Parts: sequence; C-alpha cells; structure tokens
Amino acid sequence: MNKKDIIIIGAGPVGSLLSIYLAKRGHAVKVFERRADMRKENISAGRSINLALSDRGIKALEAVGIMDAIREISIPMHGRFIHQQDGSNAYQPYGNAGQYINSVSRGALNAKLMDLAEQHQVEFYFHEKCNSINWEKNDIEFEKTLSQHTELRHADLIFGSDGAFSAARLGYQLKHDRFQYQQYYINFGYKELHIPPGPNGSFQLEKNALHIWPRGNFMLIALPNIDGSFTCTLFFPFEGTPSFASLDTKEKVQEFFNNTFADIVALMPGLTDDFFNNPTSSLVTVKCYPWVVDDKFALIGDAAHAIVPFFGQGMNCGFEDCSVLEQLMEVHGDNWNTILQEFQQSRKPDSDAIADMALNNFVEMRDKVSDKKFLLQKKIESAFSKKYPDQWIPAYAQVTFSPHIRYSQALQNSLKQEAIMKEVMALPRIEEIWDQPAVEEKMLELLSNQTQ
Amino acid sequence: MNKKDIIIIGAGPVGSLLSIYLAKRGHAVKVFERRADMRKENISAGRSINLALSDRGIKALEAVGIMDAIREISIPMHGRFIHQQDGSNAYQPYGNAGQYINSVSRGALNAKLMDLAEQHQVEFYFHEKCNSINWEKNDIEFEKTLSQHTELRHADLIFGSDGAFSAARLGYQLKHDRFQYQQYYINFGYKELHIPPGPNGSFQLEKNALHIWPRGNFMLIALPNIDGSFTCTLFFPFEGTPSFASLDTKEKVQEFFNNTFADIVALMPGLTDDFFNNPTSSLVTVKCYPWVVDDKFALIGDAAHAIVPFFGQGMNCGFEDCSVLEQLMEVHGDNWNTILQEFQQSRKPDSDAIADMALNNFVEMRDKVSDKKFLLQKKIESAFSKKYPDQWIPAYAQVTFSPHIRYSQALQNSLKQEAIMKEVMALPRIEEIWDQPAVEEKMLELLSNQTQ
Repeated sequence: MNKKDIIIIGAGPVGSLLSIYLAKRGHAVKVFERRADMRKENISAGRSINLALSDRGIKALEAVGIMDAIREISIPMHGRFIHQQDGSNAYQPYGNAGQYINSVSRGALNAKLMDLAEQHQVEFYFHEKCNSINWEKNDIEFEKTLSQHTELRHADLIFGSDGAFSAARLGYQLKHDRFQYQQYYINFGYKELHIPPGPNGSFQLEKNALHIWPRGNFMLIALPNIDGSFTCTLFFPFEGTPSFASLDTKEKVQEFFNNTFADIVALMPGLTDDFFNNPTSSLVTVKCYPWVVDDKFALIGDAAHAIVPFFGQGMNCGFEDCSVLEQLMEVHGDNWNTILQEFQQSRKPDSDAIADMALNNFVEMRDKVSDKKFLLQKKIESAFSKKYPDQWIPAYAQVTFSPHIRYSQALQNSLKQEAIMKEVMALPRIEEIWDQPAVEEKMLELLSNQTQ
Repeated sequence: MNKKDIIIIGAGPVGSLLSIYLAKRGHAVKVFERRADMRKENISAGRSINLALSDRGIKALEAVGIMDAIREISIPMHGRFIHQQDGSNAYQPYGNAGQYINSVSRGALNAKLMDLAEQHQVEFYFHEKCNSINWEKNDIEFEKTLSQHTELRHADLIFGSDGAFSAARLGYQLKHDRFQYQQYYINFGYKELHIPPGPNGSFQLEKNALHIWPRGNFMLIALPNIDGSFTCTLFFPFEGTPSFASLDTKEKVQEFFNNTFADIVALMPGLTDDFFNNPTSSLVTVKCYPWVVDDKFALIGDAAHAIVPFFGQGMNCGFEDCSVLEQLMEVHGDNWNTILQEFQQSRKPDSDAIADMALNNFVEMRDKVSDKKFLLQKKIESAFSKKYPDQWIPAYAQVTFSPHIRYSQALQNSLKQEAIMKEVMALPRIEEIWDQPAVEEKMLELLSNQTQ
C-alpha cells in the first residue's frame, strides 16, 4: 500500500473516527482543529448536546473496536416517553424488544475517539483554523489562533470534516465551477436546558427513554445523562407567539413553562438562568455536490451534508460515511480517484434522503405523536410488522436499526408504506376494526399490488 | 429629504441604472467596479452578450429618460425564427402586432447608462474589488487591483449589485445567521459564436427575429447586432455525446456543425477558432434571503436573484428591481428601513417565479418549439387570446409585454392556463377540430370553472 500524508480538517466525532480508520491502514494522519482540546478545556458553552447513537453509528464504532468503551458511557433509550399538556403520558417503543437507541454525550464520545486515534499515532493540532486551501498544490494555510501566526501545510490527501459551517467547503465553493450548494434554515431554533440529578444521582424522569413534550408548533425533549441529569432541548420558533423573541423576560419564561410544561418545571431550578445564559442556535440543512477533487480532497460528515437533528441521525450518518469509505478502501486499495468518486456517488443519494426524512420528522415529533389517529396508525403498522417482519419494517426502524438498508431505500420504502397506510386509515370505522383480519388482508393486498 | 452617502458595488447595467435613480433623488452616489471601464477598454473576452430588452426593462429606462437613446442601438425582434434540422423554417410571433423584444448589446447599453449617471454626478471607480464589508460600521474594504493597495470606504447605505457571483453577498452569507442560500447549476454551458455582416453591413439572416436552432437536448440561438452581424450562443451539455467534452478537435466541431446546423455553417467562417478561443460558461440560478440589513444594505439584481437566460428576463428583472425601489422611495421618503424591507418582501416572490419560469423555458426553446402538438397548442391559445384578450394573455406575453402583471402572478396564471390546455389538447381529433366553436366553448367553460 502507498502510504499517504493525510490532513483532516476538524476533530469532531467524524474527523476523529475517520482518522482512526485511515491510521489503521498505515497512513500518516494529522488532524487540525480550530477550537481547544475538549479533553483539557470545557468548550461546550451551554451546548452540551446529547446524541442518539444508533445502529449505523454503532456499526462504524465496532469496526474500530471502541464500542464496548462507548457502551459504558451510554444510556439505552427503548422508546419515546410522551408528556401531554393535560398531564397524561404515553409510551411508544422505538422497535421490537432489544432494539434501542443510546443517549451519549457528544463530548465524552469525541474524547474517547481522540484518545484511541492517538494510540494509533494520529497527531492532533488544536487552535489551528483553516484559512484557505490551495487546490493546485494541496497546501492548506492554517492560522494559529493563539499566536495569530499562519503556517502552510501540505498533504497528499485532505478531508474536510469541519461541520455544517465548513471552512474547507467554503474554499471549495469559491474555487469550483458548477458547485451545487444549498443551505436551508428552518424557522425554529433550539436552546439547551437542564434537569439536575435527584438525590444520590437518581433520575427524576424515566431513565431509559427519550422524553418528548409535543406542543403542536414546538416541543421540548430530554435525554438522560449517566450522572442522573437530563439534557433538555427546546425546539421553538424564532418569531411569533410564543417564540424566543416573545419570551424576553425571566417572568415570561417562568410563566410560560409553568403553563406549558407543568409536569417538569419543578425539576428545572435553573430554568430562567439557563434560558438567558445559553445561546439560541439555528438549525440548518446543507446539501452540496460534488464533494471530492480527484484523488486529493473530500468533504465528509456534516461538511458534506448537514441535517436537522429530528431523526437522531446526524452523527450516525457521518459515522456511516466512514464505514462506506472503509469498504471502498478495502476494495480499491491505492486507487484514491476511484475511492473518492464512488464515495460521493454512493453517499449523495443517501445523505439527501436522510436530510429530507429528518426535516419531515420534526412535524411528527412536535405534533403528530400526540395525535390519536397517528398513534393508531403506528399501532396497526407495529402489529402488522410483528406478524410479517419480512414484509414490513416501520420507517423509523429501517433508518435506526437496519444499517443494511440504505437511507435512500428507506425513504422509498417509507413513501410506499405511507401510501398504503393512507388507504388503511381511510377505511370506515378503522378505530373499531383496526385489529380485525379484514385490515390485515387489505394491507397484504395493497402490498402485493405495489410489488407487481 | 435626508441626503445619503451611497456606495454601489458593481457597475453593471443594474448598478448603473440604480445609481441614476438614486442620484436623481439627490443622494451622493459612488459606484465601484472590479473590472476596467468598458468604455475605454474591451473587456468582453469572447462574451459580447446580446440582451433581449423587453417591457419591464423599457419601463425602467423610460423613467430616467434614456430609452430614446437605447432604441437607436436596438433591433426589434418580433418573433422566433425556428430553423429545423431538415432545413425547413417556422416563424412564431412573440405577441400581437406591435409587440416585440429588442436585441441590444450589453456593453453599449451599460456604457450609455454610465454616461448618463456621470451627468447626474455619480462617481465611478474602476479596478476596485470589494474584499469585505464591516457590517457594524458600514465600512467596505476595496482592493485596488492595479496597485494592490486596499482602502476602507464608508457609506450610509450600500447596494450589492455585483452579479451572480457577488462578493457583497458572500460576505453577507458568512456574517448573517440563518441566511437562506442556494446556487443551482444546470448541466449545460454556453459558448458564443459569431456570424459576421454580409456585404455592405447586410444581415445574412432575417434581421428582426430571434433565431433558434432547436435540437432536442441542445440549441443554438442568434440575435442581430446593429452592424449586421449576429451573436450566436450554443447552449450545450458539458458531458455526454454530443457535448463540449466530446467536441475536442476542430475537425469534430466542423463536422458536427456541418451535420447539425447545415443552413448556417457557411455563415460562420470563424467557427472553429471561436469555438476554442471563447470560454465555455456555466449557467447558474441563485436564490437567497434575506437581501437587506436594516436601513443600510441591500442586494439587488443578479446578486439577489441570478437566473438562467432562457426567458430573456435577467436584466429586465434587475431593472424592474430599480423601478420597484423607486416607487418605494417615492412612498416612504427617508424611511429606509421600510423601503428596504418592502423591497425584499415584494421582489422575493417575483424573482423566485421568474427564476423557475426561466428554467422551464429552456425545455420549451430547445425542444418543444419544434414539436407539432406544441405549435398547435400555441396556435389555439393565440387565436383564443385574440378573441378574448381580457381572459387569456399567453404566459410569454404576460412576462414579456405586461409589466403590470407581477412575475409571481404570471407564473400562477400560466399554471392555470397549462391545466386548461392539457384538457384541450386531449380532446379527440384536436388536430382537425382546433378551430371549431366546440374547442372555444370548452376553453370558456374551463376558464369559468377555474374562476368559480
């Protein structure tokens, strides 16, 4: 194998995992990160961020042997715990028994990946910001943000894994003729809030669930942390009533939470401080193409395809990028032209698909999960899927628990399922007959029509 | 009135026209242009570019009293002159008698606008490239490209009219949270070619028409110049067969033109030289939002909404931006916050609409105009429109000859007309009965159903 000098821009979870894959194949890998080393300094700044690690991400972590260590800092979440405004609750399992997603701290996961990378001789450089890339010479100018000195660094191969606001991508956009590019913001932002642990590190809500307070046009969610706390995220309109703009005093925030999230407000003693100290962040979808230049540059992870978080797939998708790249390295050896070409051609339709599904899922989470007809539909699908597991995998399970199904295929399948369920839900008196054989026969018939 | 120091970035047709509108209201206007003064140096570089000036643009030029001078350098084009591959021709009038579009040289038009602007004390600065904008202080850093010195310039109000690849917009994109942005390239490029004048400056093709050689997946067009020459533009795939990539020798180009454009190839003695000397340019659509910052910055023209040229509306749309801004200045006086807000809110849906219509029109021009059924449909629409002019203005005429109809309204109207014509063209034996009363009655009935 032809050993390459590789530079990765961005030491986030995807860049760190990618460095391990590349180093294990014998390449000399350096990773440059604009920010400080998160293992030495707290850089979360009110954005601690919990991730929902699921099977696509797990598969990529298992391949480098780090999943056992990650499991120790993860909390299984077996379903959605729905908190209605009237105080009632509902629980929706994510899949079959044994299928769950994992709440894990982004920072802790990232730190473990960097530690492992260093064990494989990956070199990390912090406080180095990518200023520009010379695409002819494959030189990168980095600015050392502590001294403001700049330094030119050369690499045979460069990966831009520097996230949704990628500096590597911006340079590419400016230099590359016919670069397709779209950044799309939804009119909602998010803000992190906090539920501290109870006495003796106890969990003050059901531990093994992802909690949702769906409120129609907005929602609050909470994910468990291993110290007994929960990280809450409010997804909320920027403008209008209510919105981040309208809740402009501590009194208004407190009153709004008292009325809207009555069952949890007592568990949030720092609510109003958090609300005004933590930043309000925006939610962007980025689609672009191409991602690569010859055998010498590729965008990967959020830098290539940033998505909104409502399917819990952003990091999983980025980790799956690494799995796919690994397979292509295995097949094509030193032929980096082919590896990178096939990488982008394979991943583009899949990342487009999960981007669209993630946007759609926002409506499901904030609104539909409290709709009776939607819940009945899920119940019918679930029962049918249990009886005919080969013919019906619910869309959520395809994306979350079925890494062998490509995102693009999952999207196609889900559209077909939706068409069938639309007919099923339109059956007269479906609320009464949903578990009768006639409904099951109707679904089998519609399925068989589709496949003809 | 509160006199403002205004800087316009970009001295193209829109920036130059805008400067006149602003100067006439008493503002102190400076225009900065990256390139040389086109009145002193030839900067076309194989992109002479003819524009199709039509009623929206004319209205904006008349308002500053320059239209008479422009008419002298324009050539009316009353319709499309279609050159089929089999050597046959067809002629399609653009509208009713007296309705025509105007072939005018971009350079000549631009030069006249700059001359007029200078008569109104507008100051032009050339070879000054916008490097960055300080959005807090409203300072712009310009790089003098001849000396490479940079200079900081301040303005109360800044307009970015620097085109599809706007430097002003890029700075805005980087600084503005939640900036919606999309650049979309079609898989076709264009290349300019040339038909010189005949003996004594005679025209070698019908003078008062826009010539089209529709060839299914690609097309050639030609617009007349006042010296008797024609500027031809080949719209052609980048890849595939045939494409810019496949025609890689002079012999291949000559043979391809001999076979594909047999009726014109003898008129193009410089064909193969032009083909390899002139650049291959790409075709981009840019959509973004917002366009303005408070009372101090606005994008305008292509910088705010670049479109493909297939409806002949790019410049007309940019000029209409100026007309709309003028009306808002008239209504709101010194209230620039309101002027700019209403400007973007009014123009965004209209520029989105013409962007989409321009993309759709590519298919019509390169393919449908040689389709018999399409031609019949246009004939039916035309006859109906003549009889019921208040109830049916063809879409092309709405966009081109009806500046009182907004682009967004024209798009809505055209979708409704398409729905009606789909039903009409599906009538049995429509080829035979198209001019019978039954067809007319059907159209009246469908129209009346729509408006109910």
